[in-house]
Amino acid sequence: MQDRIKIDKLLASEKPIDCVVAKGWVRTRRDSKDFSFMELNDGSCLKNIQIVADSKLENYSEISSLTTGSAISVTGKLVPSPGKGQKWEIHADVVEIVGIAPEDYPLQKKRHSDEFLRTIAHLRARTNKYGAAFRIRSEMAWAVHNFYREKGFRYLHTPIITGSDCEGAGEMFKVTTLDPANFNKNEKMDCSSDFFGQEANLTVSGQLSAEMFALALGDVYTFGPTFRAENSNTSRHVAEFWMLEPEMAFCDLEGNMDHGEELLKYLVRHAMDVCTEDLDLFANFVDKGLKPLLNSLAEDKYERINYNDAVDLLQKSGKKFEYKVEKGIDLQSEHERFLAEEYFKKPLFLINYPKTIKPFYMRVNDDGETVAAMDLLVPRIGEIIGGSQREERLNVLEERMGQMNLAGEPYWWYMDSRKFGSVPHSGFGMGFERLLMLITGITNIRDVIPFPRTPGSIEF
Amino acid sequence: MQDRIKIDKLLASEKPIDCVVAKGWVRTRRDSKDFSFMELNDGSCLKNIQIVADSKLENYSEISSLTTGSAISVTGKLVPSPGKGQKWEIHADVVEIVGIAPEDYPLQKKRHSDEFLRTIAHLRARTNKYGAAFRIRSEMAWAVHNFYREKGFRYLHTPIITGSDCEGAGEMFKVTTLDPANFNKNEKMDCSSDFFGQEANLTVSGQLSAEMFALALGDVYTFGPTFRAENSNTSRHVAEFWMLEPEMAFCDLEGNMDHGEELLKYLVRHAMDVCTEDLDLFANFVDKGLKPLLNSLAEDKYERINYNDAVDLLQKSGKKFEYKVEKGIDLQSEHERFLAEEYFKKPLFLINYPKTIKPFYMRVNDDGETVAAMDLLVPRIGEIIGGSQREERLNVLEERMGQMNLAGEPYWWYMDSRKFGSVPHSGFGMGFERLLMLITGITNIRDVIPFPRTPGSIEF
Repeated sequence: MQDRIKIDKLLASEKPIDCVVAKGWVRTRRDSKDFSFMELNDGSCLKNIQIVADSKLENYSEISSLTTGSAISVTGKLVPSPGKGQKWEIHADVVEIVGIAPEDYPLQKKRHSDEFLRTIAHLRARTNKYGAAFRIRSEMAWAVHNFYREKGFRYLHTPIITGSDCEGAGEMFKVTTLDPANFNKNEKMDCSSDFFGQEANLTVSGQLSAEMFALALGDVYTFGPTFRAENSNTSRHVAEFWMLEPEMAFCDLEGNMDHGEELLKYLVRHAMDVCTEDLDLFANFVDKGLKPLLNSLAEDKYERINYNDAVDLLQKSGKKFEYKVEKGIDLQSEHERFLAEEYFKKPLFLINYPKTIKPFYMRVNDDGETVAAMDLLVPRIGEIIGGSQREERLNVLEERMGQMNLAGEPYWWYMDSRKFGSVPHSGFGMGFERLLMLITGITNIRDVIPFPRTPGSIEF
Repeated sequence: MQDRIKIDKLLASEKPIDCVVAKGWVRTRRDSKDFSFMELNDGSCLKNIQIVADSKLENYSEISSLTTGSAISVTGKLVPSPGKGQKWEIHADVVEIVGIAPEDYPLQKKRHSDEFLRTIAHLRARTNKYGAAFRIRSEMAWAVHNFYREKGFRYLHTPIITGSDCEGAGEMFKVTTLDPANFNKNEKMDCSSDFFGQEANLTVSGQLSAEMFALALGDVYTFGPTFRAENSNTSRHVAEFWMLEPEMAFCDLEGNMDHGEELLKYLVRHAMDVCTEDLDLFANFVDKGLKPLLNSLAEDKYERINYNDAVDLLQKSGKKFEYKVEKGIDLQSEHERFLAEEYFKKPLFLINYPKTIKPFYMRVNDDGETVAAMDLLVPRIGEIIGGSQREERLNVLEERMGQMNLAGEPYWWYMDSRKFGSVPHSGFGMGFERLLMLITGITNIRDVIPFPRTPGSIEF
């Protein structure tokens, strides 16, 4: 029996083939007097291949009533297509009907809103737009791994369930096997009888663990799911998302920025080079400005400016912001986007933030007031990378943790890394979904994740 | 300023280099009359590079008192080494001391037990054995991605937090933001006020979601963290582990087995070809039988036999088992290992299990009694792959779910995939840690995961 060939391979064929097998789902069908023409898609690429079924075929009456979404297996000849925009079509010798899609199939040929498609997230990858989005997601994940392997980084799986809170920020999901029904009201739940014998949460960052491995293996990165129990219903927030976190020994803030710029440029170029067809869909139908933006991300030198200078710029800009800009505040998305989109019109690193608005692990600068933090801001998205050089000096770290009321004991292992052969090191986090929004022009984070998790929403 | 070169690159140099910079941690140091010799490791590979520091160096008194684990930056000449087993060494012009490791550094030069090293999991990657293990882990993760990309599979991120229970097995972690102190004793916790508005758990498998995407994009795979709230303290169980799950449209049980065999052979060969140096450590010091086993895994044709025949074999074997073998039981690890290690002495697929011991989604065979399940059993480990052809026939699936008392409503989206263009499809899960145990000969699963999570243990 002939092996099935996927449609992306068929369409790329160099020559006609006498006998091929294609399997997939019928996107549309139209009939002429003697033929039924079907557009067949198998998910391997955006394009369909045209199947031409002769009315002399034994089961033609079934073929000519095939509905959108039905699955078929076709055996036939791959021949040049007279049709516009398609090099090949298949003249069917056999059309086997594998699975019918009845008339109530939700993905009939018409435009569907993103909102509607979110309610059928189990089916939306069958549409052109979401098929393309999730093929790009897959390819970009591969590009991340390939970039790091070529640079000699090791991929590290940091724990999802954690007893520590990297950001000290609090908004974490609890993980438990206890049944609260066994506790008295107002009695503090006793974690000592829980699965891990103490409070356990879903991780907000793998950084602290990654630092331990950077100080052993040199350069490492994590790439995995991360969680925020933030009750935000915006187009930028989900409770579960994927984050990339490189961590590099013997690397300072400058090296950290160089690395972030190299990474983003590589990823954008890779998308343009490899995901060409799928990306064209977004450039043509989702965001007309996409290609110029991607070119700028891949080619321009990224700006690097101090937080204090950025605040000055914002204050002098004359722009009306919802949130007032003052030294010492954490910048809002509107400020970040103004800088990247309107002022510099390209990506920029904001560095040396006031230590009061940054976590304990960031390295204190010589001025004693700022830390060696860096955020990479890009048009459309705002912050896409947040990182820092880490505080490698044990005494400075202890002092700062003391000021921030962080009890030392849970961090004994973290402090160990500063006691034994401590070295300057740096790293950052890049939200993978933000990267995908940047690359595709998709504006709602729910639409770049297969099955998004948001407040009140855990379907599928 | 000269860029640092990592030690793996230095050791692979084709020629001497006048000026190089190496950075890393001192593994050992010994002194002769006029020189201090240091073994420097930076985690890029198993091997150290020897640093020769002349007593004429300005800070020689500090250099010659450097302790194990201290971090240094060396500038000097890469020259041929007269020493045995090392092609190159560095004659230092400058040795900058970056971070001292005091005498209480736990990793002094001597043999440490695996049990002890588990208590310092934040440091153990600095040892030869664990450095090697985690470099192999990283490389094997890459091999997984590369294998699937070359075959045209798409990588899919399925949700970690889920409202459904794939296996119907129950042993799941709850995810919540509620404070149980706000509930009355014996009052059922009202999930409607919880973050997701219903009960939420950590996933035990991404399969059901992956099926949705296989029926859209064709061939997909998931590779991510998976959870079991099983109170088992064995060398084979952890609460959090990584699982690989391919799912293939238009694929039957035969194709599923072909794919599993191809995958495992590819991964084993990749380890032997690419992780040579690190693997030699395990072959020499951990498991003398490792190389023959890996060769068998890569070269032998895997056996394929029916569950019923396997039960016959076990019953007739004369072997004393702790658990008695009878038709209809789920095989124990001792049975699986007997078949792979002693009887066939190579990997085997066990197929067509009784439907009574398998989940609802497995395709019912024509006999009405068995399902198109497959487990791949290997020496040392037992089951490394578990999978099946999925039930694609809506009426059969509904009947079986009815028999198993699985309420239809939460599965509406899963049933949709059988209503609209359903096709035969198959997939399986492979425990990534089991793969690593198989490849390295490490016998405790805690030692192939950076920071293992087990009952009562969530440190780091």
